[in-house]
Amino acid sequence: MIVDCHGHYTTAPQALWDWREAQVAGKKPDAPRISDDEIRESIEKNQLKLQKDRGYDITFFSPRAGSMEHHVGDARISAEWSRVCNELIHRVCTLYPASFAPVCQLPQSPGVEPAACIAELERCVEEMGFIACNLNPDPSGGYWKDKPLTDRWWYPLYEKLVELDVPAMVHVSSSCNPAFHFTGAHYINADTTAFMQFLTSDLFRDFPTLKFVIPHGGGAVPYHWGRYRGIAQDLKRPPLTELLLKNVFFDTCVYHQAGIDLLLKVIPADNILFASEMVGAVRGIDPETGHYYDDTKRYIDNSSLSAADKEKIFSRNARRVYTRWKPA
Amino acid sequence: MIVDCHGHYTTAPQALWDWREAQVAGKKPDAPRISDDEIRESIEKNQLKLQKDRGYDITFFSPRAGSMEHHVGDARISAEWSRVCNELIHRVCTLYPASFAPVCQLPQSPGVEPAACIAELERCVEEMGFIACNLNPDPSGGYWKDKPLTDRWWYPLYEKLVELDVPAMVHVSSSCNPAFHFTGAHYINADTTAFMQFLTSDLFRDFPTLKFVIPHGGGAVPYHWGRYRGIAQDLKRPPLTELLLKNVFFDTCVYHQAGIDLLLKVIPADNILFASEMVGAVRGIDPETGHYYDDTKRYIDNSSLSAADKEKIFSRNARRVYTRWKPA
Repeated sequence: MIVDCHGHYTTAPQALWDWREAQVAGKKPDAPRISDDEIRESIEKNQLKLQKDRGYDITFFSPRAGSMEHHVGDARISAEWSRVCNELIHRVCTLYPASFAPVCQLPQSPGVEPAACIAELERCVEEMGFIACNLNPDPSGGYWKDKPLTDRWWYPLYEKLVELDVPAMVHVSSSCNPAFHFTGAHYINADTTAFMQFLTSDLFRDFPTLKFVIPHGGGAVPYHWGRYRGIAQDLKRPPLTELLLKNVFFDTCVYHQAGIDLLLKVIPADNILFASEMVGAVRGIDPETGHYYDDTKRYIDNSSLSAADKEKIFSRNARRVYTRWKPA
Repeated sequence: MIVDCHGHYTTAPQALWDWREAQVAGKKPDAPRISDDEIRESIEKNQLKLQKDRGYDITFFSPRAGSMEHHVGDARISAEWSRVCNELIHRVCTLYPASFAPVCQLPQSPGVEPAACIAELERCVEEMGFIACNLNPDPSGGYWKDKPLTDRWWYPLYEKLVELDVPAMVHVSSSCNPAFHFTGAHYINADTTAFMQFLTSDLFRDFPTLKFVIPHGGGAVPYHWGRYRGIAQDLKRPPLTELLLKNVFFDTCVYHQAGIDLLLKVIPADNILFASEMVGAVRGIDPETGHYYDDTKRYIDNSSLSAADKEKIFSRNARRVYTRWKPA
């Protein structure tokens, strides 16, 4: 079984984006009108087709990350938008329960306590069967004005994540800072930043069962694994395996063979979760291979990893990390 | 010949740091008093010893990056501090002309036009024989408030760099943003960010001979080389080799064999410059190898690269990029 733990509803019907535009313009629109047929059309021609073409079985599916836009409007705007997006994800997963499992967006807002997200998290998990959430380490959208993920500011939300046994993918949204291209810089930087925050803290002593997935292959971390091992050593921290690897997992959204080979070489197979993020940041076909850049299964298939380790990455680890996921 | 293009004077005598403290406290101190013997002591026990132990011949040597602190004080403070630091580098390189070649810090300041750095750059290059400079893409120290490196805001400085034929290493300083650990997150993020700024702009059409060195192995870029090739393709940009690789070079400050192997595999040898950044971000010995993490020459020696490509990385490319450097 092939489980893609990282997919966003980037192809949602236009009515969703129109609703968002009206909301941000202050027009207080009624709930977006989207028929089941429109959802089917948007999914069957895109994610579901690609799943079949590529041999992926199921995608853990969340609202478009770039559109979470926690920096736009206030907490009320964010709460409303999160509810709309999460309910649409719920509909997709109800229509295709074997192919998609729901992951929610949180109604974060810059400077607002993360505890304010608990109600929506509970609603999604307990009432609609969501299995995980995306957690934005920078609700300010590229200015990094909120506290590090290791600050007690976040603890009430972590207590709820632990209680519900729900993992969080650390995922920023779009950048309103002109310094950062969103998918090319902000996403990757955020992954690296979160890892380094974890490295310098005792967060996982306080929350031994809290689980984070760092997407995009862990940002720069595996490439600089020696740097991180060395910095931890200089700081008199425990070895990374002991300090972090019971709680932190990396996905495989790395879009070339050499990158995946590095990831598989330096990070233990127990800490890697298969993912492609399709349809996402890179949509073209690599002229060097003739295949989609983001068809990451090919790179893992082509790697020299053992069959047992491949199975861990493709599905076994997902069962362990996403404990609320019950294959249909 | 082994040329380390990236070293900072992290071991400068205490009088320098005392002077800085007094300066920041508004005490208007006289020039720091540092004897030649103090300089010799600080260099011979550290960088010079390590050069000899490791078989490096020369280091391109600049003030401590984390201490540039462009975000501290105003433009006048930054100008004064840059002059003090650069003059000390000049003294080191005058004492050891065969072992160190000087690279200057620029007197940047948040919100101040980069053109204000031209006088100090000219003084360093024309009067003191400096061969390159470090350029901070985020003088705000982790809040990224200044314009991207591709904005015309920077053009007067680039015109001078081109006129003097001096390359710039893109290097941030310390972070005053608690989200970012400086050597573990801010440095690496800045490298990735700068590359992505270059990718989305036509800067090198305007400055076909401008040369940037992106340190720390290019941040996350080589690990995500497929992502960057794919994003460029989606954005209808030219292939990266054509768009950037006449102007952008990566150093080898990657502190483990697997990371260096990836770098050497995906980036053309013509675009890689040997560097270790010693004595720098990681100072310990890797228990997995028994050698210093930052003894990067070992990783390149151990790689499967051809002797001709190794020679490019160790010295030939440095001669081409740092044209003002004349080996003693």
